[in-house]
Amino acid sequence: MTARQVQLIAYPSGRVGPENFRVAEVELPAPGEGEVLVRNQFTSCDPGMRLRLRESGPAGYFNSFPLNAAMDEILTVGEVVESRAEGFAPGDAVTHAWGWRDYAVVKAGQPSLGGVGTLAHIDTSLAPPEKFLGAVGNMALTAWVGLIDAAELREGDVVWVSAAAGAVGSLAAQIAKLRGHTVIGSAGSPAKVRYLLDELGLDAAFDYHDGPVGDLLRGAAPDGIDVYFDAVGGDHLQAALAALRPWGRIAMCGAISEYESTEPQPGPTNLFQAVANNLTLRGFRASAYLHRFPEAQRELAGYLAEGRLAYRETIVDGLENAPQALMRMLAGDTTGKTLVRVS
Amino acid sequence: MTARQVQLIAYPSGRVGPENFRVAEVELPAPGEGEVLVRNQFTSCDPGMRLRLRESGPAGYFNSFPLNAAMDEILTVGEVVESRAEGFAPGDAVTHAWGWRDYAVVKAGQPSLGGVGTLAHIDTSLAPPEKFLGAVGNMALTAWVGLIDAAELREGDVVWVSAAAGAVGSLAAQIAKLRGHTVIGSAGSPAKVRYLLDELGLDAAFDYHDGPVGDLLRGAAPDGIDVYFDAVGGDHLQAALAALRPWGRIAMCGAISEYESTEPQPGPTNLFQAVANNLTLRGFRASAYLHRFPEAQRELAGYLAEGRLAYRETIVDGLENAPQALMRMLAGDTTGKTLVRVS
Repeated sequence: MTARQVQLIAYPSGRVGPENFRVAEVELPAPGEGEVLVRNQFTSCDPGMRLRLRESGPAGYFNSFPLNAAMDEILTVGEVVESRAEGFAPGDAVTHAWGWRDYAVVKAGQPSLGGVGTLAHIDTSLAPPEKFLGAVGNMALTAWVGLIDAAELREGDVVWVSAAAGAVGSLAAQIAKLRGHTVIGSAGSPAKVRYLLDELGLDAAFDYHDGPVGDLLRGAAPDGIDVYFDAVGGDHLQAALAALRPWGRIAMCGAISEYESTEPQPGPTNLFQAVANNLTLRGFRASAYLHRFPEAQRELAGYLAEGRLAYRETIVDGLENAPQALMRMLAGDTTGKTLVRVS
Repeated sequence: MTARQVQLIAYPSGRVGPENFRVAEVELPAPGEGEVLVRNQFTSCDPGMRLRLRESGPAGYFNSFPLNAAMDEILTVGEVVESRAEGFAPGDAVTHAWGWRDYAVVKAGQPSLGGVGTLAHIDTSLAPPEKFLGAVGNMALTAWVGLIDAAELREGDVVWVSAAAGAVGSLAAQIAKLRGHTVIGSAGSPAKVRYLLDELGLDAAFDYHDGPVGDLLRGAAPDGIDVYFDAVGGDHLQAALAALRPWGRIAMCGAISEYESTEPQPGPTNLFQAVANNLTLRGFRASAYLHRFPEAQRELAGYLAEGRLAYRETIVDGLENAPQALMRMLAGDTTGKTLVRVS
């Protein structure tokens, strides 16, 4: 059969543009022994994908996307059409990592994205398929282990979550709030700030465009913070180091403010605050904490079932618009999880 | 009585110079109730003192030294001359924090330097007084908690210690070595490198002047490192982030490479490595881990008693030469703990 896929044709320098991609039609072989054919329904846009649009990304991170080939290792949900793998049957709802294409032949048991992207069933009685790319999927694990394991969240902590209207940030902010913490959120538009205050119920929120982030944070948390959930880096990280109280912790899940720079960006000038105040900065990737998924999912599913979790997606229609969706997300133009509806 | 003290008369811009200090003669009142008069024997030079020679130092750190007044909160050992404090008698060997002067009136029980500098007896049967400013003192605690608590040293870790010929570094390197780790040390001269290899018995060592630190580190630890003990910051920290293996840890005890800069120095451009490889950076101050002192001292005293711990001091004679001693230490011109023999 013929299938459509988005291919990267050039590594962008600076901002990603539509000229970096093309949609290609390729011949898809029939599934072999141990493989399934999946009709993809939703595929994902994640900030970290920008790092994979480089010829050479950060050492130890997920591989760069190759040029003129399918973009592998992107989380996706779909429906099995044909199966030659034990345990999978036509009609099954699954998640896998062969995204940014309409149909995929996926080998069962082949590890992807550190296990997060390995072919697996999803339980659509719990939530609709697209939620498995968000609130009950990898985003939930990222938010949860960021707070619980990386930041070692403790009773009484005042928590600042950056990119708090985003897929991970909105979950992290709510998990902290539902666990009884004072939570400050920041985001990039007045509408997002309203979302943080009105729908997520955060204690304070600010638009980082409204002044130096350090000043805005001090205004929102005059007595300082104990935990910073960092998806932004740059001036946000600098502001956090200045605001953290003794024994404060930073969970570093990304640095979206730096991803589209052509030059490596310098780190904060006030890293010595870590020494002065016994601070911990801990980078983390959810894929390294897969053993925590059941516990994270249980907690999140509980909140969902009780109707206590607000969650938005920005859904862009059409595989051919996937690059556009990624660009909009990187520009801060989407709220919640950014998804592409493939079909 | 009349006493001599070093006073700061101007905050240096850039490198510290002799013009920033003077020796003043002051009238010393007789000790009041609860106080002792101490004849100081040795007083300390620590890298962190440079940060206190600023009008406004890092938030949360030890206070800046005032101008035209005694420089308080500097670790010192001496002998009690006169006592009006319970538990202290003339002839007692003590440690306290009223340094950079020949005689001090010290109030018993008054906390200083987070407890590290509070007036206390020292057991000179264990080691001579000056060692309590070094191998069995605060330096030992700094080295030990840096490795054990901040870096969470684990079996099999490959450890890089910067400033490894310094007071803290030489202890940290040896503790790691004596616990069975592969240890790489770096320092600032060929003589120091020989000291690291020949006397401390490290597995590899390099002079950071011999090329880009990242390259030198890769040469010394081709398979990467698991722990970095950071007293230097700057290019050393950048090199460590590039060399750390998954789940690696950095214990940050200082950033001496940056202390004499007039402008805040940018942090590493590769902080994202923390995300990519699940790294932890943890700043720490020994004064925050006083509860660990007995265990640290027990271990270090054991090594000392078995003659397994090499330890050097650079002793500068004369209180009036204390600024000179500090300058030499900041320039990387001293080995081991830098001390001033007051009398």
